[in-house]
Amino acid sequence: MAGNTFGTVLRLTTFGESHGKGLGGVLDGCPAGLRLDLEAIQHQLDRRRPGQSAIVTQRKEADQVEFFSGLFEGVTTGTPIGFLVSNQDQKSHDYSHIADSYRPSHADYVYDQKYGFRDYRGGGRSSARETVSRVVGGSIARQLLPGVTFQAYVSQVGNLRLEKPHSELDLSLTETNDVRCPDPEMAARMEAYIRQVRKEGDTIGGVVSCVIRNVPVGLGEPVFDKLHARLGQAMLSINAVKGFEYGSGFDGVCMKGSEHNDAYNADGTTKTNHSGGVQGGISNGMDVYFRVAFKPVATLLQAYESIDKAGNPVQVQGKGRHDPCVVPRAVPIVEAMAALTLADLALLARLSKL
Amino acid sequence: MAGNTFGTVLRLTTFGESHGKGLGGVLDGCPAGLRLDLEAIQHQLDRRRPGQSAIVTQRKEADQVEFFSGLFEGVTTGTPIGFLVSNQDQKSHDYSHIADSYRPSHADYVYDQKYGFRDYRGGGRSSARETVSRVVGGSIARQLLPGVTFQAYVSQVGNLRLEKPHSELDLSLTETNDVRCPDPEMAARMEAYIRQVRKEGDTIGGVVSCVIRNVPVGLGEPVFDKLHARLGQAMLSINAVKGFEYGSGFDGVCMKGSEHNDAYNADGTTKTNHSGGVQGGISNGMDVYFRVAFKPVATLLQAYESIDKAGNPVQVQGKGRHDPCVVPRAVPIVEAMAALTLADLALLARLSKL
Amino acid sequence: MAGNTFGTVLRLTTFGESHGKGLGGVLDGCPAGLRLDLEAIQHQLDRRRPGQSAIVTQRKEADQVEFFSGLFEGVTTGTPIGFLVSNQDQKSHDYSHIADSYRPSHADYVYDQKYGFRDYRGGGRSSARETVSRVVGGSIARQLLPGVTFQAYVSQVGNLRLEKPHSELDLSLTETNDVRCPDPEMAARMEAYIRQVRKEGDTIGGVVSCVIRNVPVGLGEPVFDKLHARLGQAMLSINAVKGFEYGSGFDGVCMKGSEHNDAYNADGTTKTNHSGGVQGGISNGMDVYFRVAFKPVATLLQAYESIDKAGNPVQVQGKGRHDPCVVPRAVPIVEAMAALTLADLALLARLSKL
Amino acid sequence: MAGNTFGTVLRLTTFGESHGKGLGGVLDGCPAGLRLDLEAIQHQLDRRRPGQSAIVTQRKEADQVEFFSGLFEGVTTGTPIGFLVSNQDQKSHDYSHIADSYRPSHADYVYDQKYGFRDYRGGGRSSARETVSRVVGGSIARQLLPGVTFQAYVSQVGNLRLEKPHSELDLSLTETNDVRCPDPEMAARMEAYIRQVRKEGDTIGGVVSCVIRNVPVGLGEPVFDKLHARLGQAMLSINAVKGFEYGSGFDGVCMKGSEHNDAYNADGTTKTNHSGGVQGGISNGMDVYFRVAFKPVATLLQAYESIDKAGNPVQVQGKGRHDPCVVPRAVPIVEAMAALTLADLALLARLSKL
Repeated sequence: MAGNTFGTVLRLTTFGESHGKGLGGVLDGCPAGLRLDLEAIQHQLDRRRPGQSAIVTQRKEADQVEFFSGLFEGVTTGTPIGFLVSNQDQKSHDYSHIADSYRPSHADYVYDQKYGFRDYRGGGRSSARETVSRVVGGSIARQLLPGVTFQAYVSQVGNLRLEKPHSELDLSLTETNDVRCPDPEMAARMEAYIRQVRKEGDTIGGVVSCVIRNVPVGLGEPVFDKLHARLGQAMLSINAVKGFEYGSGFDGVCMKGSEHNDAYNADGTTKTNHSGGVQGGISNGMDVYFRVAFKPVATLLQAYESIDKAGNPVQVQGKGRHDPCVVPRAVPIVEAMAALTLADLALLARLSKL
Repeated sequence: MAGNTFGTVLRLTTFGESHGKGLGGVLDGCPAGLRLDLEAIQHQLDRRRPGQSAIVTQRKEADQVEFFSGLFEGVTTGTPIGFLVSNQDQKSHDYSHIADSYRPSHADYVYDQKYGFRDYRGGGRSSARETVSRVVGGSIARQLLPGVTFQAYVSQVGNLRLEKPHSELDLSLTETNDVRCPDPEMAARMEAYIRQVRKEGDTIGGVVSCVIRNVPVGLGEPVFDKLHARLGQAMLSINAVKGFEYGSGFDGVCMKGSEHNDAYNADGTTKTNHSGGVQGGISNGMDVYFRVAFKPVATLLQAYESIDKAGNPVQVQGKGRHDPCVVPRAVPIVEAMAALTLADLALLARLSKL
Repeated sequence: MAGNTFGTVLRLTTFGESHGKGLGGVLDGCPAGLRLDLEAIQHQLDRRRPGQSAIVTQRKEADQVEFFSGLFEGVTTGTPIGFLVSNQDQKSHDYSHIADSYRPSHADYVYDQKYGFRDYRGGGRSSARETVSRVVGGSIARQLLPGVTFQAYVSQVGNLRLEKPHSELDLSLTETNDVRCPDPEMAARMEAYIRQVRKEGDTIGGVVSCVIRNVPVGLGEPVFDKLHARLGQAMLSINAVKGFEYGSGFDGVCMKGSEHNDAYNADGTTKTNHSGGVQGGISNGMDVYFRVAFKPVATLLQAYESIDKAGNPVQVQGKGRHDPCVVPRAVPIVEAMAALTLADLALLARLSKL
Repeated sequence: MAGNTFGTVLRLTTFGESHGKGLGGVLDGCPAGLRLDLEAIQHQLDRRRPGQSAIVTQRKEADQVEFFSGLFEGVTTGTPIGFLVSNQDQKSHDYSHIADSYRPSHADYVYDQKYGFRDYRGGGRSSARETVSRVVGGSIARQLLPGVTFQAYVSQVGNLRLEKPHSELDLSLTETNDVRCPDPEMAARMEAYIRQVRKEGDTIGGVVSCVIRNVPVGLGEPVFDKLHARLGQAMLSINAVKGFEYGSGFDGVCMKGSEHNDAYNADGTTKTNHSGGVQGGISNGMDVYFRVAFKPVATLLQAYESIDKAGNPVQVQGKGRHDPCVVPRAVPIVEAMAALTLADLALLARLSKL
């Protein structure tokens, strides 16, 4: 398997399966001299943790990170930062219902085809638990960009959609409810809906929006590594993501150039921001904002039809503790991947001029 | 500037500006033994070429590719393939209207900020003409995957949207009209609309859809280099792209897991394909399909307000020959980037098992 | 700090300092389906371990590797292999003699200059203990190439030099003595010499030779990633290495082409092997052999002159437990780096033809 | 073929064969704002050019470089620099003597094995003519490091060896003779020897030494990308190189630590420089110096025995115009690769601290 590293000069390499000893990673390229706020890192892990509220999976994982290297008296030394988040909730599960059968819309079938066999315990490397390492790396990346704020929030659950743009929302309210929607009334409706879906043994999709403020001008490389192209890959690499749009996004398609163009103010800022803070792949100092679509989780608590390895039809009874809707827990993951992307590009931007 | 290389083991590096001597690239990692169909490559360049129809830019460029290396008697030798597409339409343009001013929603301002100055002739490296090198590389990549078909088409121009899924369209009709929409009636409406927009000196956005058929099972690396994450970066790196979705995309957000899951047939194929041919980041053999949103081109043939380098307001009269709508010419570019992505992942897939 | 990853498609990323919690790494790109021989890995760690004989450092480290991921029922799954070798011998050392002073020919001064400060405990990341992760990765790489043998041995300690070529030595004798020299008589002289040097509180350099047999034809990429160029980087990246030569090496300089050229046998093998198994950067199936020069360890058990951070002269009394000569323990490290290099190139070679 | 790119953030990708249309490359990552001295680049090409003196190959190649991109009014724009050196001396050669036979110690046999066939004209990509692109890239890299001097010279031809260290030589004399040896008397002896060897239809090896002065402290990444490891790969990737040593090199093996250690002066410089300007993989500000061993060229102007593709013995009469000794023309290539290595590490060093 390749592709376990993200970044060009700030590089996060992750490892680990959901039901092995743990998940971890190595962050290489972090400059020396950063006093790490370890509590801030743990705080982000807590935001992603299972069992944190009534509407997420009730698995129990403390998700505490242990750092192996790269720090001296609390300050980064410039050497690679190795870390581990141990798996704790590993009672002897019964996986017989999935060892020989392929769950629909899971990676079971393709893993078997690609690798010849698979670690069927809990999805192995395809488990969303892999993202715990991204949250650690992303939290460090965030601290490399002290003035920049990364604020993600849930803007849609099923058909319940927050229509207001980010500029009209009070994002300080995001963490006041379990859904992580900054509009309290909409949050309540979303939460009720998620509870109902769970009761049905079903799941539902959603959208996470994110706004990044105070981005320095000049981040992003103009061709294949445009800021939004790297951000798009980052988001699409998160489990269950089906789409990414930034700035005017898919709606911008219907606009004319004369409406869409962002006229300049005298200081280089723009009067509108359909560009989403990125022009020609490079940040222009305006808010970078984007939306990420998450499909409904494939794991259901219903009986469903599937096939076994021989292609015979089998009926499987879904079990386990899973998220009825991933978006509340996806919020810190989206922020983490955004921070990793921008910190990497910020380091690269040091190299653009003599 | 970094980021001029795309791919992990099949690597395309591009160079060149729109108003320099030419644009070109190096394709490294192409296996030996492929008899290149040079006409097929030129055919793809012709599909991208300016001046090919009444609804695209009327610039004159022959866009003929010259190969410098990597071929012996028409067959790839395994060595890097260097190539150049010379710029021809270089009459002495008058750039005084942009040399000192920043066109709205162009890269002018950010280039100046990032690099300290810029090559203002025709947009330099931020010109969409850069994609000519991608079409050359993508056409070779396509020949590396002989059974796989890449079929992109225009599915939306402004508000004119083709609602039918790709499976209900006759994609052989795509090239029968200038818009490259496989529904002739819709194509006619789109073309009329584009003509009208151009008459207004304005531009309009659109969507390119693409379907890839006969994809082998097992392409894509499960974490950061998921097939759809790499495809997303590839598409978002094309000029003017604002969004990417695959399979059920943003609409999948509103579905429940029980609806969205793709039940298996006995042979491992699935009854539905909301997954878009990708599960856990790996191709499952079903059609890979996706949509790419393009904003309206920023260059208008109207007068517009802007600022100069000192921040003074200036009024600029747009000139030149530009596309009123980029999607017809974006079709071969989308296919090229898709082919580069899949060929790279197909080579990587050779390494997954002992 | 960048540069903690080695390899193109089989990629080892290492982390850890000598006096932190431990050292470890992630091996990404290992194909699925390899039944790992864990004892063989531990055996290689034991060959590198401090305290293994009377002529190496007497530090106590068990050097047991713990695997976190990438294995299922003893077989590689194709996912990244994360591992840790915990540090054990961490009694509260007194580093006051080095915290503020720069030991000659150590990395102390340059670390301070480059990073602004350093982790002065035991040399931090510049400690040779970093190579423990390479031995783990290299042992896995070795198992990916089951027919290929990697045999390194000590061929020189100070002026004591084994003149015979590898083909005239019985390499099965290498492990029969503490020096790891396959000539027992020379081994005894080397060992006596090392003991004498240690008694003087001094250190001495040496050469490790290595021969790799049964290398498949076709490994190595012809330009910057020639087999011997990658092998050279691999060896020169080991602490204390000052030189690398392969095949005829520096002696080949004095030969004429008519003497140096290796005439072919009918089966494509060659009558002589001045090429060292590599032609044009690609393995030709003959023995790959090379020599690696190690300088004398800089850490002495003598008093020495140095400077402190302010540039004031200080006299320092060397302490600690260090190797009087690194080459005996370098033997498994050389083999490990050679195996990582060849396994990576063997995977890449799968991509050379259609 | 992979491996046609050198560098981490300053990346040179080369293409081209000796008997195709030309050789060229793309230099990506060159910062904006460098006014390129094009004459200096051509000067380096002239130093490498065939036919420049009586003791090198008499092939005729003007070796003029054409730049396609990356420059605006003579200054680098930060975009990739594409270039081509056209092949001119392409009269219809007769390659029948090598098309079906394998020249000893050439890459013919391994190319056929690895790629299934080869471009037999003049060695294709394995030709030393490939280095012309390195000289272009290296000359630009050199201009990125204005204070640093790269001075290579011939220090050995066959058994004729210059024993003096670089500090006792007047390197300004290097270009005063055709051998590029800074000791005029030794140069004369070397030249006479090369003439004699050529008369015999034979070839002879040699050593190029190089000293780099005014290197900033802090270049090099401490583990796999140590300054000397990257330099070693760079040198070993040059055709015909068999060995690399820096600082005390292979001779350092015989020294004791107490002799070898470089004591500090109060300003952080060292009294001796056995380290070769590199400690722990990082430059310490002292002279970086190293030696590179070149084997005798394999192409002889004698009859020799070989085999054809079927393994039958054949006798071949060597022809063509080849260098009797490569080291005079290797001098600028060594400098170019050194400059590429250091400029890349100098850019990376901008990322080491907050």
